[in-house]
Amino acid sequence: MQERRPSHRTLALALCACAGLLTPTLALAQAAAPAPAASQPASAKPAGPAPGKKPSSADILAASKPTDWRTVDPELALQMELPAGKVIIELASAFAPVHAANIVKLTRAGYFDGLAVIRSQENYVTQWGDAEEDDAKARRKPDTLAKAPVEFSRPLKGLKLSALPERDTWAAKVGFVDGWPVAVDPKKGRAWLTHCNSIVGAARGNEPDSSDGSGLYAIIGHAPRALDLNITTVGRVLQGMDKLSSLPRGTGALGFYEKAEERTPITRVRVLADIPEAERPRLQVLRTDTATWQAWLNSRRFRGGGWFVHEPSKVELCGALPPVRSAP
Amino acid sequence: MQERRPSHRTLALALCACAGLLTPTLALAQAAAPAPAASQPASAKPAGPAPGKKPSSADILAASKPTDWRTVDPELALQMELPAGKVIIELASAFAPVHAANIVKLTRAGYFDGLAVIRSQENYVTQWGDAEEDDAKARRKPDTLAKAPVEFSRPLKGLKLSALPERDTWAAKVGFVDGWPVAVDPKKGRAWLTHCNSIVGAARGNEPDSSDGSGLYAIIGHAPRALDLNITTVGRVLQGMDKLSSLPRGTGALGFYEKAEERTPITRVRVLADIPEAERPRLQVLRTDTATWQAWLNSRRFRGGGWFVHEPSKVELCGALPPVRSAP
Repeated sequence: MQERRPSHRTLALALCACAGLLTPTLALAQAAAPAPAASQPASAKPAGPAPGKKPSSADILAASKPTDWRTVDPELALQMELPAGKVIIELASAFAPVHAANIVKLTRAGYFDGLAVIRSQENYVTQWGDAEEDDAKARRKPDTLAKAPVEFSRPLKGLKLSALPERDTWAAKVGFVDGWPVAVDPKKGRAWLTHCNSIVGAARGNEPDSSDGSGLYAIIGHAPRALDLNITTVGRVLQGMDKLSSLPRGTGALGFYEKAEERTPITRVRVLADIPEAERPRLQVLRTDTATWQAWLNSRRFRGGGWFVHEPSKVELCGALPPVRSAP
Repeated sequence: MQERRPSHRTLALALCACAGLLTPTLALAQAAAPAPAASQPASAKPAGPAPGKKPSSADILAASKPTDWRTVDPELALQMELPAGKVIIELASAFAPVHAANIVKLTRAGYFDGLAVIRSQENYVTQWGDAEEDDAKARRKPDTLAKAPVEFSRPLKGLKLSALPERDTWAAKVGFVDGWPVAVDPKKGRAWLTHCNSIVGAARGNEPDSSDGSGLYAIIGHAPRALDLNITTVGRVLQGMDKLSSLPRGTGALGFYEKAEERTPITRVRVLADIPEAERPRLQVLRTDTATWQAWLNSRRFRGGGWFVHEPSKVELCGALPPVRSAP
């Protein structure tokens, strides 16, 4: 129908958009949407590149093998239900084990159910938790909740880094570990999960160790990498980022909602493992220790033959988060 | 009142957010909002840093002189009226002179009035223009509209670049020219306005020279720098970014709205010079060829003494766009 057909010019930019930034949300959205060749879902039949055209990101995903994908552990992922829809978050237990365990414990105790999104600041963060946490009205936390230590970084030892050759403004070395965007300080032997768009962190006060996982935020704009090593990053939104990024921004200082009624209520949060199998989302993240991953990165670096007239020849850590799909 | 007081933990993150990323929208929003010391509007009385604390970005702005600010030329800026509010866009005539002139011409002909936002793609772009442009129903453009050439880059010669010492993933050299984020290829002697969050570009088809300024997009997520040198960037949203970034994402392929009724109508677009003086916005952008600019950048690099425990010691081109304020 008329409305479904984008115009020549808009579609062309769209094509470049698709090849240019295949977001997890988009990857999944497109699996269900009529899409041009360059944005076929990963579950589609392998389609070779057109003559004279280099393989697109979608071509690479379409040709991927089942073993190229890592299935998300349902014991380490959450489904947060908002009025607008579901947000699926994977927890980074390798980087913030105590916070991750706390968040699972809080979720199973029903701590987040009925709380709200309390802040949305343009090009920065959307934050949720207990707006009354410092008051008598504060919601009770499970007695078994651990006092969380600072988990801003972890030892590099034990991590299999798939490093990017590209230089990074913020860190000496960057790359991916099991699909997580990671920065490294080789001298100090430390590694940390970086503040890219869609990464989730644990809000803290002025004391570095004052976070416990009960207050969380997601990056909704350009990666604020200055936050790296200053606050604990705990996960990544794998699906439903738009439910957090398209909220009205708060009109109070720093994007806080000025009135309680402006907040978005959190209907319910569940650990994926606690959702009946029939309705449980089964997501997979493209593995970053494979030839397919390297081919996908190259499809982002070299895009000649189509809409692109200048080969970027580069990828950037926070602009190349691994694609996410529903398990076929 | 209760709702206005963010909790200890959320406020602390908020403070870091404020020092961390003073967006144009936020800078203006905070001028009207009750805000902590670290986010006083630039129009406030100079406030020295607290003992032992380095000057914050807000301290630097509060101490700025009138000559540290460049007033936006009302002949080269637009006010786009959406149901949710106004979006103010400055045109980059030094980088895309023909496109900028076309956009002014189209605006004065009323071309955009009654058109719509036709696409919003998560972590990428919001796009507006004529959804029917390839159809018989396409809106008529002024006969005097120029055939626009490719304006992906311009000669470096003639530009006074305030370069950043930080390395950039995408370009050999980056910095700011009159407040615009710019990348440079010294070997080729070319410079271009980079695709940072809030930068506006001119949609094009597969032909590099197929844009004329009648279809526009704004970057709403992480900077997709791979678009640099592939499409003409024409300006920057100085105010009202949230009106474009908080729209529901389109559910069609690539974020296009599938039904006409899902689109956000553009009530009216006017050149600022055509708005009666009494109601005309008068915006200023912090100049980037001043000592105040360098002090502001340093306040972003070195934040010790407050919430930050790790000095980022870096700034990034697309994470340090010059603050915008309403003229005092």
